[in-house]
Amino acid sequence: MQIGVDSFVAATVDAAGRAVNPARHLSELLEAVTLADEVGLDVFGIGEHHRREFLDSAPTVILAAAAARTRRIRLTSAVTVLSAADPVRVFQEFATLDLLSNGRAEIVAGRGSFIEAFPLFGLELEDYDSLFAEKLDLLLKIREHTHVYWSGKHRAALTGQGVYPRPLQNPLPVWLGVGGTTGSFTEIGRERGWLPMTRAHFDAQLGPTGALLVGDVETVAEKILHVNESLGGISRLTFQMSVAALPHAKLLRAIELLGTRVAPRVRTALASETAAELLSTDSHRAA
Amino acid sequence: MQIGVDSFVAATVDAAGRAVNPARHLSELLEAVTLADEVGLDVFGIGEHHRREFLDSAPTVILAAAAARTRRIRLTSAVTVLSAADPVRVFQEFATLDLLSNGRAEIVAGRGSFIEAFPLFGLELEDYDSLFAEKLDLLLKIREHTHVYWSGKHRAALTGQGVYPRPLQNPLPVWLGVGGTTGSFTEIGRERGWLPMTRAHFDAQLGPTGALLVGDVETVAEKILHVNESLGGISRLTFQMSVAALPHAKLLRAIELLGTRVAPRVRTALASETAAELLSTDSHRAA
Repeated sequence: MQIGVDSFVAATVDAAGRAVNPARHLSELLEAVTLADEVGLDVFGIGEHHRREFLDSAPTVILAAAAARTRRIRLTSAVTVLSAADPVRVFQEFATLDLLSNGRAEIVAGRGSFIEAFPLFGLELEDYDSLFAEKLDLLLKIREHTHVYWSGKHRAALTGQGVYPRPLQNPLPVWLGVGGTTGSFTEIGRERGWLPMTRAHFDAQLGPTGALLVGDVETVAEKILHVNESLGGISRLTFQMSVAALPHAKLLRAIELLGTRVAPRVRTALASETAAELLSTDSHRAA
Repeated sequence: MQIGVDSFVAATVDAAGRAVNPARHLSELLEAVTLADEVGLDVFGIGEHHRREFLDSAPTVILAAAAARTRRIRLTSAVTVLSAADPVRVFQEFATLDLLSNGRAEIVAGRGSFIEAFPLFGLELEDYDSLFAEKLDLLLKIREHTHVYWSGKHRAALTGQGVYPRPLQNPLPVWLGVGGTTGSFTEIGRERGWLPMTRAHFDAQLGPTGALLVGDVETVAEKILHVNESLGGISRLTFQMSVAALPHAKLLRAIELLGTRVAPRVRTALASETAAELLSTDSHRAA
């Protein structure tokens, strides 16, 4: 199981609605990604919002700065508001990020948990589902073919135009980002059969109830193993820890503990489970 | 006068049309920007193209990686194909870049020297001029006001939506990128009175005729001073040196010479000219 961190880049807003120290918050975020890379976490995700309380309307720009500062950690959106974006631009940006990071980019495509992107980009809320379905379809076509033939309701048709650059990873990983209700979303995933699905994030800031990151290292590791088991085995678990929402020193300390203490315990436990299963399979076979 | 480098990120394409070593070319580009920063050049620009011969369809993503590796050099597009872009996204990306770079971002907005962006983004060539004029107008409105009221032909209207994040620099520098004919372009600039104007780049790869970077350090510095004089004094001169089009070692050597030898001579010469003019003004006054 991969273990990582997702961050919304929250802004501290003054009485007049202006962000206070926005450059410092982004610099602290880069420090957090760098540390997550150093302590061996598997993935770092950055949210996308178009409101004054956030600084992350252009997540690929932030992820590219993170790519230049890190070596191993995978870099992803959390989530790309695909409904409001042009899949051609989204693919170009992530393919560029993939080249800059030597193959560490991933897209988590979602519909966003806020609706402010709709009026900003001239979209209608009644198209909420059809926008997402259509744009996901186009994004996956672009991922599959350099020259794209496609037509739809919400974007100009493509009649064989090439989309460049091509990413290093082929295919570039695309996940579905699910929050709250998963109804039509799960269907889209099932129909296609092969899209990885990311579940709603577990919120480290919720307080003691339901929070996975509260407790000593042993407790946290046990909670993670419990979630893994109750969901039937998951490939990735990310913790929501937002810059500016958590004090910076606490954020860094949480990332450090997660990477150096919690993740190793979870990996060891899962490895022994796998070993035990293999042994039991072997003894069944032998019997 | 500021002296800098503009780079298109050219791809080396194999017989099947696939880019060879694209990640290496981007990594070499970052090495070039880092060196340009270290040797004290003032600005580095990255082009935007949507063809298989280039890797720079998402210049702000590349510039953000460059921001994470540099300290002083200004970072700009060269040029942002504004006609084919959404000014809201362009502003969001450059504002983010500005925050990541501590106030070193600039937009050079142009119409692009290739037309492949038009069919890719569903635009008509007959709208070439009106697209640019309208989108420049919107970009400047967003720069001026966080909450934007705007309507036009080529994009959904804005009725007071906020565009975030806001950049560190206020105003975020916007230049007009001029190539070839300057007709309607110059008019747009004049109408507004206050937009800086960047002239066509001087191409270091043209060969001996017309190339500013051919010759020894003294000759190159003289050519620059001559261009400056014949154009009536310019605020910035950038040299077009494209990654993958020039051998990497030659590119680095050219950047090093430009920063450590040529730029200091030009600065010294211009400083003595200014001093001489001041003296002559003083003597006129005294007379």
